[in-house]
Amino acid sequence: MTEEHDKTGAPKEADSDDAAELHQVGLTDAFIREIAGLIDEDYTDRVQELCRDMPAPDAAELIVKLDGGRRHKLVEMLEDELHPETFSYFERDLLNDLLEHMSGKNIAAIVNELDSDDAINLITRLDEERQGNIIRHLNRNLRAAVEEGLTFPEASAGRMMQREFVAVPQFWTVGKTVDYLRAAAATLPDRFYNVFIVDPMHRFIGAVSLSHVLCAQHPVKIDTLVEEEHVSVPVTMDQEQVAMLFRRKDLLSAPVVDDDDQLIGVITVDDVVDVIQEEAEEDLLKMGGVSNPDFFSPPISTVKARFWWLFVNLGTAFLDTFVISFFTGTIQKIVVLASLMPVVASMGGNAGTQTLAVVVRAIATKDLTDANTWRTVLKELLVGSINGILFGIVMIVGITIWYHNWKLGGIMAAAMVINLAAAGLSGALIPLALHKTGFDPANSATVFLTTVTDVVGFVAFLGLAAWLLT
Amino acid sequence: MTEEHDKTGAPKEADSDDAAELHQVGLTDAFIREIAGLIDEDYTDRVQELCRDMPAPDAAELIVKLDGGRRHKLVEMLEDELHPETFSYFERDLLNDLLEHMSGKNIAAIVNELDSDDAINLITRLDEERQGNIIRHLNRNLRAAVEEGLTFPEASAGRMMQREFVAVPQFWTVGKTVDYLRAAAATLPDRFYNVFIVDPMHRFIGAVSLSHVLCAQHPVKIDTLVEEEHVSVPVTMDQEQVAMLFRRKDLLSAPVVDDDDQLIGVITVDDVVDVIQEEAEEDLLKMGGVSNPDFFSPPISTVKARFWWLFVNLGTAFLDTFVISFFTGTIQKIVVLASLMPVVASMGGNAGTQTLAVVVRAIATKDLTDANTWRTVLKELLVGSINGILFGIVMIVGITIWYHNWKLGGIMAAAMVINLAAAGLSGALIPLALHKTGFDPANSATVFLTTVTDVVGFVAFLGLAAWLLT
Repeated sequence: MTEEHDKTGAPKEADSDDAAELHQVGLTDAFIREIAGLIDEDYTDRVQELCRDMPAPDAAELIVKLDGGRRHKLVEMLEDELHPETFSYFERDLLNDLLEHMSGKNIAAIVNELDSDDAINLITRLDEERQGNIIRHLNRNLRAAVEEGLTFPEASAGRMMQREFVAVPQFWTVGKTVDYLRAAAATLPDRFYNVFIVDPMHRFIGAVSLSHVLCAQHPVKIDTLVEEEHVSVPVTMDQEQVAMLFRRKDLLSAPVVDDDDQLIGVITVDDVVDVIQEEAEEDLLKMGGVSNPDFFSPPISTVKARFWWLFVNLGTAFLDTFVISFFTGTIQKIVVLASLMPVVASMGGNAGTQTLAVVVRAIATKDLTDANTWRTVLKELLVGSINGILFGIVMIVGITIWYHNWKLGGIMAAAMVINLAAAGLSGALIPLALHKTGFDPANSATVFLTTVTDVVGFVAFLGLAAWLLT
Repeated sequence: MTEEHDKTGAPKEADSDDAAELHQVGLTDAFIREIAGLIDEDYTDRVQELCRDMPAPDAAELIVKLDGGRRHKLVEMLEDELHPETFSYFERDLLNDLLEHMSGKNIAAIVNELDSDDAINLITRLDEERQGNIIRHLNRNLRAAVEEGLTFPEASAGRMMQREFVAVPQFWTVGKTVDYLRAAAATLPDRFYNVFIVDPMHRFIGAVSLSHVLCAQHPVKIDTLVEEEHVSVPVTMDQEQVAMLFRRKDLLSAPVVDDDDQLIGVITVDDVVDVIQEEAEEDLLKMGGVSNPDFFSPPISTVKARFWWLFVNLGTAFLDTFVISFFTGTIQKIVVLASLMPVVASMGGNAGTQTLAVVVRAIATKDLTDANTWRTVLKELLVGSINGILFGIVMIVGITIWYHNWKLGGIMAAAMVINLAAAGLSGALIPLALHKTGFDPANSATVFLTTVTDVVGFVAFLGLAAWLLT
């Protein structure tokens, strides 16, 4: 196995024995361990040699997978060898940690090497007090682009777009376009996927895919090749909307226009892929009670971030305590209730979470809109009720056999139906209500949901027991 | 507002008042309601008129957003007007439901119009007993492609790839390549992003992006333009790996090669975008206890699918009952324990879920590998323990003030530390163990986790109380 292969792990030869290795995307663990060892023994030369010309994503992977001390040491060792783009792959916490000891001027030198969209992304992830200092040191063009970019809303098309694109006037022929591309090659972006057509006011007319330019005859007018569905993205459009547009129309790149319909930038599919992954990932983490991806964060900031979510849940838990305290008299008389009472509450929580996961995702993907809101709510209520009845039957049979007490079984069954219906209903209504009122359903719905299913679960079960068994 | 605008909602004019409408991707709710009304009143002509030439994603959206009865009626009404691609957008349940009353021959007629990758996707989503019948009716080329495609493992590159691509011999010049493209335009795929270079054995040599072909001088040899990192995808590579490769290298398309390195297909970024969204979405749903996306499924299949997850959780809940039953004597003596006991268990569940969400995601994105496994486990144990200590302090202070019982406060504090440490540890270890042994951590980890945090929570709290308070 060659050293090159060792580093990237990208499949290059079909004759290797190690199929798993061959299919690996990214660095091998063996390589990371080797570098870690070399860092510990201060073999700077060898480390530089192994990491020279490493593509940015690989270098970023190497840095995040080392532990804190080694990370800093590696960045110091590599310094000028690191591709500036490497820094655009880091999460907020890690980025600030790595750049902590670097001067504004040195950071600006890194940012100066980036495309305008990557530069804006990197700068917005830095602590605010440092941002101004770095922007001051950027070269003039980039500085203007960054300052303009920062005026667009966060997570909008304006923040995602690149300012470098290829546009030609609508009256040109294919031949003239091709001649221009060939003559201007040096000044064009390194890779582009479409030629945009503009009118004399630089307003967007349409996009032509490169394969159509290549295959067309030279005398043909370029604007006859325009794709049927020529969509443009308003600069303020939210990134989730942009992602949906790309998915729906199978776009590779889309023009960004300002209020006057003038072409001001281009969004490419690789940035959209990142957005799609991040949005779906964030929803998963938020539903689990993690508001920011913290996998690479130092333990202490992870503790802080997670503490508050747990603190809110402590409130919910003590609400349970409060509810149960009304029934302590009953529990003292029939102590088996104490051991059975978690069952109904926990089943409600689980059933509600199922509904919640489905509804939160459907809201995010716009599968759920006004057109099918009520159908969804009714369906979830129905599904919850039917499962409630099914588990009610399980309860009656199980409890009667186990405790020889059909009355207790009936009470559990009734409580189960009530709580699973409540779970289905609130699992759908809570995220919908949060979404309608402008909150993020993934972030806060779980707390509200468990509050409902716990309270309903305990009250229904203990209340019925207090009424019918004492 | 024009009717065209009404339908697609894609931004076309900047002078509309309704900004929300302008930014909408997809159909408006008003349009869907209008169609629903027309279906109810059997205005077939008007429905056909409004839906004629509707792009496939829009037609698919319209169909899924109508309720069951109207869906079938609309598909009947539109029949020949529907773009065949429309059917490639539906989830398994819905697809089978819509095609239920259609003959194999009619379905084959739809599939015959699709690209080979879409055709394979659609067929694999059909109920198995119908697949053979449909394949039998496909035209010869597609049938061969589908049958070959089905021999590749599920969710592999072979299932994602298209068989239509553009390849030229390595000794050609740019000029010859361009001449060939222009002459062969009619037989080439409608859109393509790269020209692949092959040797005389049709083995993959490299890829050239179209912008480089366009900008190069004609006498230049085509293989000098090959991208530095020419990766090819083995036909058996898993789709998650493919997606990661695309993200990492910002690819638009990648060549697929067989065991002999021969070029047999191409994967394009639009299919990868779907994979990325689906994978992240599935993890979220699975963690919520939903094994298949069921948003558009009829209630009864949703009930069935969710029942089994709840049934497994019922086991966990009765394990709680079993554990608590050992302490009913203590609870009867000190009944306040009954109302306090859910607190420690629930905090453990929440803290464990936070860890679980982060670790499951990190496993999926390959951020977590052997190189940082132990660091991650230790970090999560540390984070859990520190939060345990913090909430322990909250408990001592709170319980002492509220119940004037510092001993009870101390017991809750100790139980909290134990359970949050256990939660951090098991939240990391359980998904890792599942992953190592070949199971899907997103699917099953939650059940194991709540089992641990419930049992540890109840045993620690009630055990300490039984020991120290009675």
